[in-house]
Amino acid sequence: MARPRNDIEAGQERLVEIACAMIEERGAHALTMQDLASRAGMSSANLYRYFEGKDALLEAMAEYWFRPKVAVMEAVLASDLPPRRKMYEFFARRFVLIRDAWRADPVAHQTYMELGEEYFEQVRSYVDLADHYLCEIIGEAMAEGFFAGLEVDEALSLVNQMVAPYCALSTMTMAMERLSEDKLARIIDAVFDGLSGVDRGARSVSGLRAA
Amino acid sequence: MARPRNDIEAGQERLVEIACAMIEERGAHALTMQDLASRAGMSSANLYRYFEGKDALLEAMAEYWFRPKVAVMEAVLASDLPPRRKMYEFFARRFVLIRDAWRADPVAHQTYMELGEEYFEQVRSYVDLADHYLCEIIGEAMAEGFFAGLEVDEALSLVNQMVAPYCALSTMTMAMERLSEDKLARIIDAVFDGLSGVDRGARSVSGLRAA
Repeated sequence: MARPRNDIEAGQERLVEIACAMIEERGAHALTMQDLASRAGMSSANLYRYFEGKDALLEAMAEYWFRPKVAVMEAVLASDLPPRRKMYEFFARRFVLIRDAWRADPVAHQTYMELGEEYFEQVRSYVDLADHYLCEIIGEAMAEGFFAGLEVDEALSLVNQMVAPYCALSTMTMAMERLSEDKLARIIDAVFDGLSGVDRGARSVSGLRAA
Repeated sequence: MARPRNDIEAGQERLVEIACAMIEERGAHALTMQDLASRAGMSSANLYRYFEGKDALLEAMAEYWFRPKVAVMEAVLASDLPPRRKMYEFFARRFVLIRDAWRADPVAHQTYMELGEEYFEQVRSYVDLADHYLCEIIGEAMAEGFFAGLEVDEALSLVNQMVAPYCALSTMTMAMERLSEDKLARIIDAVFDGLSGVDRGARSVSGLRAA
């Protein structure tokens, strides 16, 4: 579901907003198609003209939740920033959006997180999209000589692991009070200046001798 | 509770082993003092000679679960490895212990994770102890010129964030299938070669211009 283009899409958008208000007030488990129809002042039969079932509704809610995050990722991708700045903004702007929502209403935030864990199928395509965009930034960085000796997929996995608290939603929620844009900037600088496919001594082939 | 030194401690150790077997078989919520007494073939009154309540039992179970992890951390700390190797082994050996337990019985592993989240007070002292040891390694690294411009506490927070999937138990559990010693070694090399208090361009003071 993109931004509304016709009456059905406008109706879907309005229903998603009502459904989000309902779960923010009463938790994820309070959401039923019948309650949504009632709250929207329409019959259940009419509601099913907009969403053929709860899965379709949840998919639209995921799209609605992720839409501003996708927008900032796409704005960063389209910018002419150097790769290091791009990667920082890619994670930082998304992180700030989510942190601000968490600060405004931590209980509502937790409700969306639980909903996302329960209906991960509706979330997975956004995780894949973010990985796709991150691969583009990694490719630009590699063209400038960064991440020498790593394949794009290896670099993708390593970067996602090194910034996990600013990226993986459940990890972010748990660590939120210890996260900051300053720390993220230090980590992205470490990614660019320290990450490569060359073994520089962290792991010894012979294992731990002295312990 | 350290390793058993007298009859009471030997009895506590045996009861902890029985309690662990019970939650591995039946889940965290199956554990009651009454069931434990019954399974151990003793009266409830006798059980309370060993543990004055469920909190004391859970504390002993946490000590039992963390004991091998503390042992590998202490062995690494006592070694004469250089700081880079030490930090890798510090995270890697603990990670391998937990991953092997997860591989052997993922359901039991999940039960311990849920128990740890529910009774976090019993877990916190081990988190603090791990941070204390990690600070020692960071101090040794700083003495060799690494992490220039960072305070020990800043470096501690940044390192914990950069290795979160190998360190924070719930993050580790979610990411387990994508984690490896090879990736951890690349991350520790990036920590040592890339992490400092010097801004190298990830974050622009003027913000994002082009997006």
